[in-house]
Amino acid sequence: MQGGTVLDKAQSDAGMAKLGATQFEGALLDLIEPWLGDSALTVIACGMVGARQGWVEAPYGAIPTTPVADGLVQAPAIDPRLNVWVIPGLKQTAPADVMRGEETQIAGFLALNDGWDGVICLPGTHTKWAHVSAGEVVSFQTFMTGEQFALLTENSVLKHSIGTGWDDAAFKDALNDTMSRPERLAAYLFNLRARDLLEGFDADSARARLSGLLLGAELSAARPFWLGQNVAIIGDDTLARAYAMALDAQGVPALVADAARMTLAGLQAAYRTTKDS
Amino acid sequence: MQGGTVLDKAQSDAGMAKLGATQFEGALLDLIEPWLGDSALTVIACGMVGARQGWVEAPYGAIPTTPVADGLVQAPAIDPRLNVWVIPGLKQTAPADVMRGEETQIAGFLALNDGWDGVICLPGTHTKWAHVSAGEVVSFQTFMTGEQFALLTENSVLKHSIGTGWDDAAFKDALNDTMSRPERLAAYLFNLRARDLLEGFDADSARARLSGLLLGAELSAARPFWLGQNVAIIGDDTLARAYAMALDAQGVPALVADAARMTLAGLQAAYRTTKDS
Repeated sequence: MQGGTVLDKAQSDAGMAKLGATQFEGALLDLIEPWLGDSALTVIACGMVGARQGWVEAPYGAIPTTPVADGLVQAPAIDPRLNVWVIPGLKQTAPADVMRGEETQIAGFLALNDGWDGVICLPGTHTKWAHVSAGEVVSFQTFMTGEQFALLTENSVLKHSIGTGWDDAAFKDALNDTMSRPERLAAYLFNLRARDLLEGFDADSARARLSGLLLGAELSAARPFWLGQNVAIIGDDTLARAYAMALDAQGVPALVADAARMTLAGLQAAYRTTKDS
Repeated sequence: MQGGTVLDKAQSDAGMAKLGATQFEGALLDLIEPWLGDSALTVIACGMVGARQGWVEAPYGAIPTTPVADGLVQAPAIDPRLNVWVIPGLKQTAPADVMRGEETQIAGFLALNDGWDGVICLPGTHTKWAHVSAGEVVSFQTFMTGEQFALLTENSVLKHSIGTGWDDAAFKDALNDTMSRPERLAAYLFNLRARDLLEGFDADSARARLSGLLLGAELSAARPFWLGQNVAIIGDDTLARAYAMALDAQGVPALVADAARMTLAGLQAAYRTTKDS
């Protein structure tokens, strides 16, 4: 990047799950070697690269705090052309919770929306809901909704009954079912299989219903985060749109912000802290 | 078996998931060939062997009905020494639900406890709760609790934080948490991971807590099945004991019946119907 402008992009699926601590530098060089010159290039990284099993541990900053605290951690790069800094995640003591990566997106959102107060929802494998006030994250909570959806569609008995399509009406019905009776989730889940066996329930509708059931249970538990709050969703995929649709049905219009743009803005904000120090 | 006496036993893990329709007979012969003589031996089978992808489809009997209806289905064995009958499962139309195998255990329980009315809980991958009255199954509900536990401990991010041991206190605390706030399940789940990262939460306690969280959510949803009811649990493993402990904590003393014994008694009861007809 040069300022806010993206000059080039590269990506890889090599991450913490695939790399040992000494393999991160090579994986990074494989991606960005063509961009390197004689002087050291500053690289800002976020996410699991800063976990204990990452390139270098960037210990969690304790909330309340600005989302990107000033304590970026330098990764031990051997190549002199690399100057790598890792953004720490955030932790909350009670109840225990952690994030890595989402703090960067929150920082980006706040950089682009100066003075914004409210709740930011970051849908994903581990969806985060974060209260933001006066530029600081003051509390947050993680839900395993996305990972449960993946496990149930890929590894459970439901995989035989779940398609790849979508059905808005089935999604909304399911959302209402678990928002009003969240404790019935485990029963509603097997019911999807039984409806397939007994009624030939449409597989695309089943997928939308599963998504709605899990999201309804989450929204029921996350109610203090969105009820009467100013809500922004960081995300741009089907999942983020499903959250927006679900919140809208509760009378909560949510602002939807592009995830990649927020990440870049957050990395920029973090980059500026390395220049100030 | 001869009457109620077990003469010999054999087992295999080859089931519906591993066998095509034409492979069941060979798999059975591999197990019981030494028991076969000149005349045909009657074999009574239950479970997924009667599913659409099983040896022969034994269509579900509609409740209300006696657990083993008189419509056993003959499997197409080629070997003249085999006379194989499959017990049909049960289905419920609204809400849609199915069982295969559990009806045989219920039949066994009722054969051994003549005139018993109440609710039978059958813990497992897909736990069933069944209302039984005047010898008939009148309603039932399946919960995917066991499968969720397996997916979360084996395939999710929690696998790093879950041990193999147990902790009664952690189990009971977790049970109370989701019985009072069942909608918070997806948040409590990730909290296990965060407590491991931030507090070094004991892995055995985490396993017991996960079990308690899932079971508490189930008991909360299954309340109409056990509140003020006469409850029996068919099962003899750790899981069945956990259900008994959980119900006892709610002031519901449950009778625990041995699963293998109930299955054998149910198969015997089904065998008698082939002789009567």
